[in-house]
Amino acid sequence: MNIDHLKICYIGGGSRNWAWVLMQDLAFEKEIAGTIELYDIKPEDARTNEIIGNALMAKHNGGLWKFHANPSLEDSLSGSDFVFVSILPGDFEEMAVDVHASEKYGIYQSVGDTAGVGGIIRALRTIPQFREIARSVKKYAPDAWVINYTNPMTICTRTLYREFSGIKAFGCCHEVFNTQKLLGAVLEEAGAAPVGSIKREDITTRVLGINHFTWIDKASWKNIDIFPYYKKFVDKYAESGFKGAKAATTFAAGGSGAIDPDETVRLRLFSSVERVKMDLFRRYGLIAAAGDRHLAEFCPHSWYMANATQAESWGFTLTPVSWRIANREKLIKMAKAYRDGTQTMAAVESGEEGLKILKALLGLGNMVTNVNTPNYGQMPDLPSQVVVETNASFSQNNIQPLVSQGLPADIRALVMPHVLAQEGIIEAVFEDDREKAFRVFSHDLAVQLLPLKDSRALFDEMCAKTLKS
Amino acid sequence: MNIDHLKICYIGGGSRNWAWVLMQDLAFEKEIAGTIELYDIKPEDARTNEIIGNALMAKHNGGLWKFHANPSLEDSLSGSDFVFVSILPGDFEEMAVDVHASEKYGIYQSVGDTAGVGGIIRALRTIPQFREIARSVKKYAPDAWVINYTNPMTICTRTLYREFSGIKAFGCCHEVFNTQKLLGAVLEEAGAAPVGSIKREDITTRVLGINHFTWIDKASWKNIDIFPYYKKFVDKYAESGFKGAKAATTFAAGGSGAIDPDETVRLRLFSSVERVKMDLFRRYGLIAAAGDRHLAEFCPHSWYMANATQAESWGFTLTPVSWRIANREKLIKMAKAYRDGTQTMAAVESGEEGLKILKALLGLGNMVTNVNTPNYGQMPDLPSQVVVETNASFSQNNIQPLVSQGLPADIRALVMPHVLAQEGIIEAVFEDDREKAFRVFSHDLAVQLLPLKDSRALFDEMCAKTLKS
Amino acid sequence: MNIDHLKICYIGGGSRNWAWVLMQDLAFEKEIAGTIELYDIKPEDARTNEIIGNALMAKHNGGLWKFHANPSLEDSLSGSDFVFVSILPGDFEEMAVDVHASEKYGIYQSVGDTAGVGGIIRALRTIPQFREIARSVKKYAPDAWVINYTNPMTICTRTLYREFSGIKAFGCCHEVFNTQKLLGAVLEEAGAAPVGSIKREDITTRVLGINHFTWIDKASWKNIDIFPYYKKFVDKYAESGFKGAKAATTFAAGGSGAIDPDETVRLRLFSSVERVKMDLFRRYGLIAAAGDRHLAEFCPHSWYMANATQAESWGFTLTPVSWRIANREKLIKMAKAYRDGTQTMAAVESGEEGLKILKALLGLGNMVTNVNTPNYGQMPDLPSQVVVETNASFSQNNIQPLVSQGLPADIRALVMPHVLAQEGIIEAVFEDDREKAFRVFSHDLAVQLLPLKDSRALFDEMCAKTLKS
Amino acid sequence: MNIDHLKICYIGGGSRNWAWVLMQDLAFEKEIAGTIELYDIKPEDARTNEIIGNALMAKHNGGLWKFHANPSLEDSLSGSDFVFVSILPGDFEEMAVDVHASEKYGIYQSVGDTAGVGGIIRALRTIPQFREIARSVKKYAPDAWVINYTNPMTICTRTLYREFSGIKAFGCCHEVFNTQKLLGAVLEEAGAAPVGSIKREDITTRVLGINHFTWIDKASWKNIDIFPYYKKFVDKYAESGFKGAKAATTFAAGGSGAIDPDETVRLRLFSSVERVKMDLFRRYGLIAAAGDRHLAEFCPHSWYMANATQAESWGFTLTPVSWRIANREKLIKMAKAYRDGTQTMAAVESGEEGLKILKALLGLGNMVTNVNTPNYGQMPDLPSQVVVETNASFSQNNIQPLVSQGLPADIRALVMPHVLAQEGIIEAVFEDDREKAFRVFSHDLAVQLLPLKDSRALFDEMCAKTLKS
Ligand SMILES: [Mg+2]
Ligand SMILES: [Mg+2]
Ligand SMILES: [Mg+2]
Ligand SMILES: [Mg+2]
Repeated sequence: MNIDHLKICYIGGGSRNWAWVLMQDLAFEKEIAGTIELYDIKPEDARTNEIIGNALMAKHNGGLWKFHANPSLEDSLSGSDFVFVSILPGDFEEMAVDVHASEKYGIYQSVGDTAGVGGIIRALRTIPQFREIARSVKKYAPDAWVINYTNPMTICTRTLYREFSGIKAFGCCHEVFNTQKLLGAVLEEAGAAPVGSIKREDITTRVLGINHFTWIDKASWKNIDIFPYYKKFVDKYAESGFKGAKAATTFAAGGSGAIDPDETVRLRLFSSVERVKMDLFRRYGLIAAAGDRHLAEFCPHSWYMANATQAESWGFTLTPVSWRIANREKLIKMAKAYRDGTQTMAAVESGEEGLKILKALLGLGNMVTNVNTPNYGQMPDLPSQVVVETNASFSQNNIQPLVSQGLPADIRALVMPHVLAQEGIIEAVFEDDREKAFRVFSHDLAVQLLPLKDSRALFDEMCAKTLKS
Repeated sequence: MNIDHLKICYIGGGSRNWAWVLMQDLAFEKEIAGTIELYDIKPEDARTNEIIGNALMAKHNGGLWKFHANPSLEDSLSGSDFVFVSILPGDFEEMAVDVHASEKYGIYQSVGDTAGVGGIIRALRTIPQFREIARSVKKYAPDAWVINYTNPMTICTRTLYREFSGIKAFGCCHEVFNTQKLLGAVLEEAGAAPVGSIKREDITTRVLGINHFTWIDKASWKNIDIFPYYKKFVDKYAESGFKGAKAATTFAAGGSGAIDPDETVRLRLFSSVERVKMDLFRRYGLIAAAGDRHLAEFCPHSWYMANATQAESWGFTLTPVSWRIANREKLIKMAKAYRDGTQTMAAVESGEEGLKILKALLGLGNMVTNVNTPNYGQMPDLPSQVVVETNASFSQNNIQPLVSQGLPADIRALVMPHVLAQEGIIEAVFEDDREKAFRVFSHDLAVQLLPLKDSRALFDEMCAKTLKS
Repeated sequence: MNIDHLKICYIGGGSRNWAWVLMQDLAFEKEIAGTIELYDIKPEDARTNEIIGNALMAKHNGGLWKFHANPSLEDSLSGSDFVFVSILPGDFEEMAVDVHASEKYGIYQSVGDTAGVGGIIRALRTIPQFREIARSVKKYAPDAWVINYTNPMTICTRTLYREFSGIKAFGCCHEVFNTQKLLGAVLEEAGAAPVGSIKREDITTRVLGINHFTWIDKASWKNIDIFPYYKKFVDKYAESGFKGAKAATTFAAGGSGAIDPDETVRLRLFSSVERVKMDLFRRYGLIAAAGDRHLAEFCPHSWYMANATQAESWGFTLTPVSWRIANREKLIKMAKAYRDGTQTMAAVESGEEGLKILKALLGLGNMVTNVNTPNYGQMPDLPSQVVVETNASFSQNNIQPLVSQGLPADIRALVMPHVLAQEGIIEAVFEDDREKAFRVFSHDLAVQLLPLKDSRALFDEMCAKTLKS
Repeated sequence: MNIDHLKICYIGGGSRNWAWVLMQDLAFEKEIAGTIELYDIKPEDARTNEIIGNALMAKHNGGLWKFHANPSLEDSLSGSDFVFVSILPGDFEEMAVDVHASEKYGIYQSVGDTAGVGGIIRALRTIPQFREIARSVKKYAPDAWVINYTNPMTICTRTLYREFSGIKAFGCCHEVFNTQKLLGAVLEEAGAAPVGSIKREDITTRVLGINHFTWIDKASWKNIDIFPYYKKFVDKYAESGFKGAKAATTFAAGGSGAIDPDETVRLRLFSSVERVKMDLFRRYGLIAAAGDRHLAEFCPHSWYMANATQAESWGFTLTPVSWRIANREKLIKMAKAYRDGTQTMAAVESGEEGLKILKALLGLGNMVTNVNTPNYGQMPDLPSQVVVETNASFSQNNIQPLVSQGLPADIRALVMPHVLAQEGIIEAVFEDDREKAFRVFSHDLAVQLLPLKDSRALFDEMCAKTLKS
C-alpha cells in the first residue's frame, strides 16, 4: 500500500453522517494521501459529498485527498486499500416500522437498530445487502481492509465473514469512547485531576462483550485503578443521575454537532443521565460501556422501558423516528448549502478513531483499541466465530484481538440470548427460511411476553412493511 | 463387586415412591443379591420400608435381598457398591411456596420443581444437601456408583460433581420412556403394528438436551423411521390432543398406581393430551421428550401457561401442591397398612430402568439408554461439564455418553438460558452469594416480566419461607 | 431402504480378499436381500467375482443376493444404500517401493501401509482416488452409508469427509477383534473359563486412539474386569511371548485361510507372539489393540524394529512384499478355479462385523463396536474432525461415537505426531503441495534420523517410482 | 501500589547475571522508586549484590532504589509488588551432566537447558523448586506480579500456575529481541534505512510458539512488510551465513558484556551466523525467533547437530559447560572487586524490557511485547493452559495476550512433541512418578534413536548425578 496514493472505497458515500466526519478528520491529515471513491445507491448524494469534500480539502489540506463520486461499485472497489461501509438499510420510513410498530402490543424501543424487534427486522433487510457487499469485496478487493459503521453492527460484520471467510473486516463504534469520557469525568469529579484535564484516549479500559452491550471489567488512568472511584460515583449519582458528562457525540444523531439548529431537542432525545449504567453496576459489578438507550434494549423491558414513562424516570428518552425524518430534511438542506457554497463546512476533529486505526494498519503507529471482530478466542465464554467487541492490537496490516477473561456468569446470561438471536437471524437469511426468522423473533425478550398469535401478527406486519419479498 | 453380596445405600430410604418401585422390581430379580441400607432423615419411615421390603422379598424372592433401616449415613455408605439418592428437599409445605407464591404476580407453574421460580428456590435448599451427600460419598464410598432420582435433576447431579469431581454419579428420569411409549402408540395408530404390540424398549431414540427439556432428533422401530409417522400424527392431533397414550406412570404422582384411591383426579392433574409437545414439533421440527407439564415450564409463559385457563386449553393442568399434601396422607396410611400386614403390597414390574442399569454396570448385560451426566462432549453445543441428558452406553463399571449432533440453533436458544441459570444458581450457593442467586432469579423467563422491585419482593418472600438461613 | 431389495455398491469389486469374505458371510444371511454391484478398475476381476458370488448364493442362500459386475461407477453408485470401498492403491509393485526402498537407509517396516514412509507414500497415491470416490458418492449416492476397508484407513476415511463433508462414511478394521480374542485367551489361560469357551463378541472393550495404534483402557467379560488378569499374563509371557492365541485372520494376508496352500509361511510372516503389545503394557499400562506388526511401526524404530533381527527377537517378521506378489498369483489361480467351477468356494462365517453393522444401520439389531470416524468429541484430547478409532453405537440409519476419557498423556505423546502427519499429508495433497508432503515425510519417526539430503533423496525416489505425476 | 515505595522481591538475588542487568537499568530510572529484597540460597552473594547495587544507585540515581539482602524468603516476599525469579537450578556441575552425559551415546546439545535430555533432567530438579516458590507466593504475596527469567522457561512458568492457579506470573526472554535486531539489519542491509538507524523496539513482530522455539509470521517496520526483504536476505546468506548482526547479548553468557575479559571466545561459543534460522525459513516459510543454538535443539538432531562438526558447519557451537564454570570464577572475582570498590560497575542500559514491563503494569506506559503465559486462547492450535510465547498487551495491573492465528500445520508438528513433553515432565514430578518421567525422556527426539536399555541407562545415570532423591 502506497501511503501517498491510497484508494479508499466508501460504500454509502452519500452519507451526511460518517462521511462528513471522515472528511473533517482528513482535513487535518497530512501524513497520508489518496482518493476516496464515494459509492451510493443515491448517486446524487455521493456527487454532493464529492463537491463538499473536495472544497474542504482544498481549504484545509492543500487537496491531499480527492473525493470522487463513483456510480460503479466494481470500479470503486477495484484495487482499494480500504473500504468503509456506512449505509442506511432501507430508509427512515422502514425504521419507523422497526421502532414503532410494536408499540400497540406494549413493546417500546429507545433506538431500535440493534437488538429487539427493531434490530431483528432491520437485520432481515440488511443481511442481504451485506452479503452482496462481501461478494463484491471478494471479487474486486479481496485484500482490502473493510471497516463497518452500519448497524446492527454485530450482524453486519458477521455476515461479511459468513459470506467471504477470507475478508479482513471489522466494525467500529464510539459507544465505548463515550464511556471512557464518563470515566474521565468520574476521576475529575473526585478531584483526582483538574476538571477537563483528562483525555479520553488516556483512559485504559479492558473491554468485552458485544456491540452496544459492551462491558468494562478493568479501567485505569495512569497508575490509578478507576473502579473504586466509579463505585463512589455510583453511590452518589445512581438515584439522581449524572448530567455533567459531555453530551453524546452528534454523530449518533445523524449529523455533526456544529450544525444542528435545534440542539436542545436533540440532546433530550439522544443523551441520558447514566442511571441505567449505574444501576447495572450496582447489580452486576462491571461498567456497562454504551449509552443507556442502547443498554436498556438488551435487558428485560420491565427493568427500564416497560413504557415511555418508565424510560423517562430512568433519565432517557425513546427516540422517535419522526425526529430522524425531520432532521434528515435539515441535513439535506445543509448539504445543498455546503455544495452550493452558500455555507462553509467547518473542520473539527471528531475524536473518532477511524482514521487513526487506518493509519495503524498502514504501519504508522501501533495502537490498542476496542473493535468488533469474529471471536477467535478473545471471548472464551462465547461461541467461536460470532462477532464480539473487545480490545485489539492494530499494526501494519494486522489486527489481533486481546484475550479477555470472559464475562461473569450472570452478565453472560444476559448477553447469550442476544448472541444466539444474532446467529439465528443470520442463519435464517442465509437459509432463506422466514419461519426460522420468526422463531428468533418469538424468542426475543419482549416478544416472548406476547401470545404466539400476536407475535406472529406483529412479525408478519413488520415484514410486510419493510421487506421487498 | 460381588454380585451375590452387593451393598446398596438408599438415601431417602423412607420414600414411598422410588423406594417402593425399587422393592417391586427387586421382587423379580434373581441374578444378583445383597443388602439395601435405608437411610432417611425420618428414621421411622426407613424402618417402615425395611419391614415392607423384607416382607415383599420373603414372599416373592426367597429373601435374596435384605432391607435394613440404618440411622447412620456413614455406616450406610461405607463399602457400598451403589448409592441411590431420592429425597424430597424440604417438604410439600416448602413446595407449596415454590409453586404458588408467585401466583399473586401472575406467574403460574405446572410442576415447579425443575425450572422457573419453583426450580430455582428448590435448588437453593437442595444444593447444600447434595454437597453434603457428595462429601459423604467421597469419604465413605468414593468408588460407588451414585444414581440420583431427585429434582431438580440437572442441578442435583451437577452439584455432586462440583463438590467431588471424582464421583461416579448420574441421574435417571422416566420422561423419555413416556415419550417412547407415545411413539409406539403413534406407529400402532398408523397401523404399522397391532395396537399394544410395540414395546417401549424397542423404540430407539436419539436423545439430547437437558432433563425435562429433552429432545429426540431421530427415532426408529426396527427398520422404520418414526419421524414421518409422527409428522402425520401431529397433523391429525395437534389441535384436538391425543388421549390414547398410556397415562403417565403413577410414580410421577408420588405413589404406585395400583394404590391410588382416586385415580381420576390424579390422571387429570398429571397427564396431558400432548398438545404442547405437538406444537413444539410443528414449530421446531424435533420431538420434545418430556411431559407437557414439564415442557411448558421451559418455554415463555405466554405460550402455554400464562394462566390456569390457558394451560387447560392446551390440555394440561397446573398441579396444585395441595393434592400432593393430601396424597401424602393416603400414602402414609397405606405404608402403615403394609407395615402392619393389614394390606399386602403387590409386586408389579415398573418398567423403570434403574435395576437394569445397575446390572449393566455389574457386567450383566450391556445397554444404551438416556441418562443425565456431565457434558464431556456429548452435547457439543452446550458448555463443557454442565449436566446434560443424552444416550449413554452402560457396561461393566463403565458409562460412556454417545456424541450427539447438538441441538438446532433455535432450540438451543430456548435451552441455553436454563443451562446458564442452572450454573448460576449452583455458583451462587457454592459462593454463598444470595445476591447472585437473586440475579439468576431476576433473569428467569417469567420473572423478567416483573419490575425489579416485585422480583425482589417475591424472591425475598420465597427465601424467607423456604430456607433455613 | 427396502431390506428385501438393497443395493450395495462394492468399489474394488474384483477383490479376492474382502469381497470373498463378504460373499461368504452373505451365504448365511437370510433376513435381508438385494444386489451387489461390483465395480473395479479391472473389470474382468469383477466379472470373475460375479460368477463366484452368484454360484455361492445359489448353493447356500437360494440366490437371495445377486452379484453384478458393473463397469460404470455412476451406475454402480446411483441409488445405492451402501458402498463398500476396498481397493489396492496402485499394485504390489508400488507397495514394494513403499516398504523396501527405505531399507538402504536403514529404515525397515513390517507392514508399510499405514504409518511411516510406506504409509505416507501410499497416502500420496490413495488420497486422489478417495477424493474421486467422495465426489462420485456426493453426485450419485449422497445418502448412502460408505464403509471403508482400505489402508491407510485413517487417511482414506478423513479424505472422504474433507472432500464431501456430508458423507456418511466410516472405516472398519479387525485388529481390535484379534485383541479381544487374545483377552478371551487370557481369561481362559487363567482358568476363569474353560479353554475355547469365551466368544470374542462377549469381550467388552473400551477402545480409543487411531487405527492400528488403537488402545483399550477398560476390558471386561461378564462381571470380570480383565485388566488384573492381563497384568498377570504379561508378567508371565512378556519375555517368552505367547503362542497360544489364534492366528491372525487370514484376510490380513490377502485371502481366506482355508485356501492358502502354504499356511506355515503365511503364519510366520503375519502373526506374532504379542511381545510388543505386552512391552507397551508394561510401560504404559494400557492394552495396545492391534497386531504387533502394526504397533511397532508407530513407535520409535529403535524399540522394536531397528532391523529385521531385532523384529525377530520381538517375535514378529518384516513381511516382504515379494510374498504378497507370489500369493497374488496363487489367488488368481484360485479365482479362476472358482469361476470355472473346477473348485468350489466353501462358505465359512468370517467373524468380521461388516454385515452385522450393515444390518444395525438397517434397524435390525442395535450394537456397539469399534469404528473409525471423524472426531466429534469422542477423543477429547485429539484435534476435532481428525479420524479416530473408538467405540460407537449403531442403530437404524445412525452412528454415534462413545465419548472416551482420552489417552494418558504419555500415550498421547506417541499418538499425536502420527495424527499431525496424517493431517499434514492430506493437506499437502489437497493443496497440491509436494514440498509440504516432503516436510511431513521429513518429520517421520524414522526419517528424522537421516540427514536432510538423504530424506530428500529417499522421498524423491519413492515418489518417482510410485506416483504418476 | 505506591510507585514511590515499591517492594520488589528478587529470588536468586545473588545472581551475577540478571540481577546486575536490573541494577544497571534501575540506575537510569527516576519515575519510580523502592526497595529490592535480595533473597538467595547463597546469602553471601545476595549481600555482595546489596553492596554493589547500593553503590551504583548512590552514584547514578541519588539512591532512589535500595538493595537489601534478606535471608528470609517470607520476609522478602511479604507485601511485595513484584517478584523476580532468576535462579540456577543446581549448579554448573549438574548442568555439565545435563549437557554432556549423553555424548557417549551420540547425543549432543548446544545449550541443554530447555529441550532435549538436558532440558528434561534440568526440569526434574527445577520443578520442585518452583512449586516451593509458588506456594510461598500464594502465602506471602498472592497479588504480586511474578516475573520469571529461569530456564526451562516454559516449564518453570507452567509449574507456578499448576501449583497456585491464581498466580499472576509470566516469563521474559530476550531471544525474540535478538531476532528483531536481525530484522532491522536485514532492512538496513537492503538499503531501506541507513545502517545502524533502525531501533529494535520499532520492529513490530507477530510472535507465536513456545519459548526458544518461537516464530514470527508477520514483521513490519513503519509501513514496510519485512517478509519480502527477509526472503531476499535468506537467498543471499543461507549458505554463507550472516555475520553482520550484533552479537548475542552478553547476558546469555552469564554476565554483562562490558566485563567479559575474553570476548572473542564468548562470542564464538554463543553467537551464530543464523544459518539454522534461514534454513528453517526456506523450508517452513516463517521466521524462527530464537538463537540458532536454541532452535537446533528443537529439531531432529540429524538436521543440525548430529555432532559437533555438523553444528560448526551450520555456523554455531555446542557450548561446553566448562566455559560456564571458568566464566563463573571470573565473575566471582569481578563481584568481589565491585563489592570492595576496587572496580566500579558501569551503568549501561541493557535493552531488556523487564523494567519497562514493570512500569507498564504500574500504569506508566501501555505496551505490547512478547511474553510467556498460559494459553488462554492466544495459541488456538495448542492445548489450553500450557505456557506459550506470544505478544501480549501490558497496562495497569493487567496482561492480555494477543490472539494469534496459530502455527502452520507442519511447524505445529515440530512444536507439539515438545509441548507434550513439557506437560508430561511436569505431571511426572507432580505425581512423583519417575517412570512417567522416563517415558517422556524415552520419547525425546534424540533419545528415541537409542535402544530402550540405553535410554534407561542414560536416564538413570543423569538422575543419579543431578537429583537429590
Ligand atoms: Mg454504535
Ligand atoms: Mg423427572
Ligand atoms: Mg486394518
Ligand atoms: Mg531465554
